[in-house]
Amino acid sequence: MYLKNAWYVAGWNSEFQKDQLVSRRLLGQDIVFYRRGDGSVAALEDRCCHRAAPLSKGQQEGDQIRCMYHGLLFNCAGQCVEVPGQERISDKLKVRSFPTEVRDNLVWIWMGQPELADASEIKQVHWHNREGWRVEEGGYLRYASGVQLIVDNLLDFSHLGFVHNKSIGTRKQGNIRPETEFQGETVSVRFTTLGSPPPAFARELGQLPENVDRFNYYVWHIRGNLFVQDSVIAPVGEGYESLDPATMKLHTFIALTPCDENTAHYFWATAHNNFTSTTEDLTRRLTEQVAHAFDEDREIIEAQQAVISTAPDAPMVAIAADGTLLKVRRMLDALLLEERSPKAATQ
Amino acid sequence: MYLKNAWYVAGWNSEFQKDQLVSRRLLGQDIVFYRRGDGSVAALEDRCCHRAAPLSKGQQEGDQIRCMYHGLLFNCAGQCVEVPGQERISDKLKVRSFPTEVRDNLVWIWMGQPELADASEIKQVHWHNREGWRVEEGGYLRYASGVQLIVDNLLDFSHLGFVHNKSIGTRKQGNIRPETEFQGETVSVRFTTLGSPPPAFARELGQLPENVDRFNYYVWHIRGNLFVQDSVIAPVGEGYESLDPATMKLHTFIALTPCDENTAHYFWATAHNNFTSTTEDLTRRLTEQVAHAFDEDREIIEAQQAVISTAPDAPMVAIAADGTLLKVRRMLDALLLEERSPKAATQ
Amino acid sequence: MYLKNAWYVAGWNSEFQKDQLVSRRLLGQDIVFYRRGDGSVAALEDRCCHRAAPLSKGQQEGDQIRCMYHGLLFNCAGQCVEVPGQERISDKLKVRSFPTEVRDNLVWIWMGQPELADASEIKQVHWHNREGWRVEEGGYLRYASGVQLIVDNLLDFSHLGFVHNKSIGTRKQGNIRPETEFQGETVSVRFTTLGSPPPAFARELGQLPENVDRFNYYVWHIRGNLFVQDSVIAPVGEGYESLDPATMKLHTFIALTPCDENTAHYFWATAHNNFTSTTEDLTRRLTEQVAHAFDEDREIIEAQQAVISTAPDAPMVAIAADGTLLKVRRMLDALLLEERSPKAATQ
Repeated sequence: MYLKNAWYVAGWNSEFQKDQLVSRRLLGQDIVFYRRGDGSVAALEDRCCHRAAPLSKGQQEGDQIRCMYHGLLFNCAGQCVEVPGQERISDKLKVRSFPTEVRDNLVWIWMGQPELADASEIKQVHWHNREGWRVEEGGYLRYASGVQLIVDNLLDFSHLGFVHNKSIGTRKQGNIRPETEFQGETVSVRFTTLGSPPPAFARELGQLPENVDRFNYYVWHIRGNLFVQDSVIAPVGEGYESLDPATMKLHTFIALTPCDENTAHYFWATAHNNFTSTTEDLTRRLTEQVAHAFDEDREIIEAQQAVISTAPDAPMVAIAADGTLLKVRRMLDALLLEERSPKAATQ
Repeated sequence: MYLKNAWYVAGWNSEFQKDQLVSRRLLGQDIVFYRRGDGSVAALEDRCCHRAAPLSKGQQEGDQIRCMYHGLLFNCAGQCVEVPGQERISDKLKVRSFPTEVRDNLVWIWMGQPELADASEIKQVHWHNREGWRVEEGGYLRYASGVQLIVDNLLDFSHLGFVHNKSIGTRKQGNIRPETEFQGETVSVRFTTLGSPPPAFARELGQLPENVDRFNYYVWHIRGNLFVQDSVIAPVGEGYESLDPATMKLHTFIALTPCDENTAHYFWATAHNNFTSTTEDLTRRLTEQVAHAFDEDREIIEAQQAVISTAPDAPMVAIAADGTLLKVRRMLDALLLEERSPKAATQ
Repeated sequence: MYLKNAWYVAGWNSEFQKDQLVSRRLLGQDIVFYRRGDGSVAALEDRCCHRAAPLSKGQQEGDQIRCMYHGLLFNCAGQCVEVPGQERISDKLKVRSFPTEVRDNLVWIWMGQPELADASEIKQVHWHNREGWRVEEGGYLRYASGVQLIVDNLLDFSHLGFVHNKSIGTRKQGNIRPETEFQGETVSVRFTTLGSPPPAFARELGQLPENVDRFNYYVWHIRGNLFVQDSVIAPVGEGYESLDPATMKLHTFIALTPCDENTAHYFWATAHNNFTSTTEDLTRRLTEQVAHAFDEDREIIEAQQAVISTAPDAPMVAIAADGTLLKVRRMLDALLLEERSPKAATQ
């Protein structure tokens, strides 16, 4: 079950090169992507309606794509416009097409009811291409787990104290409880760690004092699985708005797009300010450390998924910290129900 | 569902050597083959009736085969004739045996009702060992797709214009419609391409003029999945019977034997006449080019099978060119129904 | 279906090192093992009750184990004793723990009703650490087959004449029928081979005459899948109690523990007396030869399992020699039924 009426990240803009057909599985469907002449990206079902050959093994002709099994040509709305050796073409010869948008170095796709696609609803994730911020090329992980276990992980930062206690977290963070606020389809989380030593990566890359305050403020967008975080590590007492040159500020976004029920795409980027540092090639080093931390998450989450797969119905026992993720899951269930109701279908 | 009352190709004769046990999966059943003293080939179910050990891990003793788990000995009719340490042997201790025939360098097998096996019904595919024709050793492909998608491919030569447009076909052939004739359980197809440049392989290997006529005449035998083709590439106007020394004549046969529902054995050979050529080692080169074209087919068909496997019930929309393959599929369905009806069983 | 109220071998004692978490799948459940301070071995369900992360990716703290996802700490009885950032801990936060015993270089586990675990019922397999006997470190095989096919193999030694006729058996043994005696939950088997040449391994390693008598006396313990064998190869007429220095005496034990329905753990060791031999490094050589024979078993049994998996319901036809294994299977079925009955549950 996927929430379909949402803008999902389909990939980094740089992944979709001119004259290349890219096949990617999203929400349980194989999609073929290609770049149109005007720079926009076409997205069609990667299955010829005639005999099910993948269009991604075909060839692009202008803004159209030809199946290279029997030569049917499709326009970028998915309508077949040519059948070799045949004059009349049935309207039924068409494949599904999907609205896309190129924005903030990302390609977004809408796989729900086409008439509901409204590009103005795409979330802002501009830090990674805003002046004054430094960022590496976008990151990507392929997860051998369903999206929901990754969502759970992002909603409960107490795991910083255990999964990441040698990288981006500290053991003390395992005991901290966040402030959480629900607004419509978003959850705002403030996870504050006061007066403790900086985590390992900050000690290595920065020039912070022995004790720091740490602010992880983030928003989770349920629709589209988007995580947008504003993270500050400042000398004690400087506060979230600290202008101290040693203060580290990071903007991270993570977009989760289901591949299918048990695998997921994980797109991410972390931009940072110009904090004091003696590290050469700082942005690359910082990105590597964040990537390492995300690998730590993946390792435990994929192990968790493997255990769950051996006994999918075995119960889990909630602890107090699970309130947020349980509430998010209920909200998602409600959105799924709404999407599948007849009323939604006729809107 | 397999049509069982048919002679299928089990393999090339050269694959079944003296004193070797060969296990091969055909029509969803594992069969063990071994050569009898008189040169004929025995074929038994590759599963000991006692404890299900594979007989192909046993050993041949004369015309008999011994299971090397507990030592039961079977004759080539499948009857157990010895149980070590036991005097009386139950009639129930037997495995299924299958009629076979060695003919035209091939071993054929009948996996249906034994009493209906009539070797005189085996089709002639003698070109590849007939004087005046040159041919390499028989070819083989293992397909990760069911047989039916390969049948569809062979019945619609318009794919020459797309799948093979850089090897054995030309783009123009994508627009050509064949003449098709149905007779009993065979389909005769005449696919004629007049007045156009030769395909790439003919340009490389032959000495043909800039424009040629091309005749692909073939017969598809529904029972046993046998494709037998007579192909001529001649200077324009020379016709199918051309005696011009530059004229290329090819005889190709392809035999498809289901391995199981989603995999297939593809046996093939292409013999050619002595057309004018400056190519050294012509037969090998020509065979390589045909093999390359068959790999092109396999690539698109396996991709097609993979797409179908993700959504087996998704509809396909027919085009005009699909008439032949749809009719063949209906004939096959009728044959399957007839084979499974009680009347057929009592005949 | 596994018989749970039994002591199974979980592994060699040497496999469970201090400060190491070992995960092993037994009877369809993943178990995490770790060594307590007193040298005993703790065994818990390898699945955190909170969010199903594997505890084997956690860390040991004294005699306790901490899940390294969200930091829950469990004692070796499986009760959660700490939830970071939370004061009260629900009794429901617990994982299953299993009784274990370290004995005879082995770690044994009881996965049935805990109140029925009685370590005095663990079978004696002390030969491999008894004075006067020589033995290599314990052997292990992982089987790609269910336990039952291996049990069948061990209960019918006529396979010595076929599977092992070039290693530890001779062809003649294929015709021999054993004496079998059933007592409670054990089967005693006497398999006697009189007046024939020694098997290959004995000819290579020993100094026996051209003809020998051979006594394979073994006990099969249905509960726990334990095979304990006393094997003697003596000059003709010397008898089972032979004191001739050339007489080879071997003690072998094999313990089969289901991994899951279609895979198994196979622990084994063979100890031997000081028989006359010119072989250097005799114990290692003899162990290699036994290991080779056990590989022969595995090859045929895994092949048999593969055949059965293609058609699990295809019938098998019994021969006279199958009486013992059929009777054992009926006894096992009765024990399984008894274990699952309400009465057993309330005892």
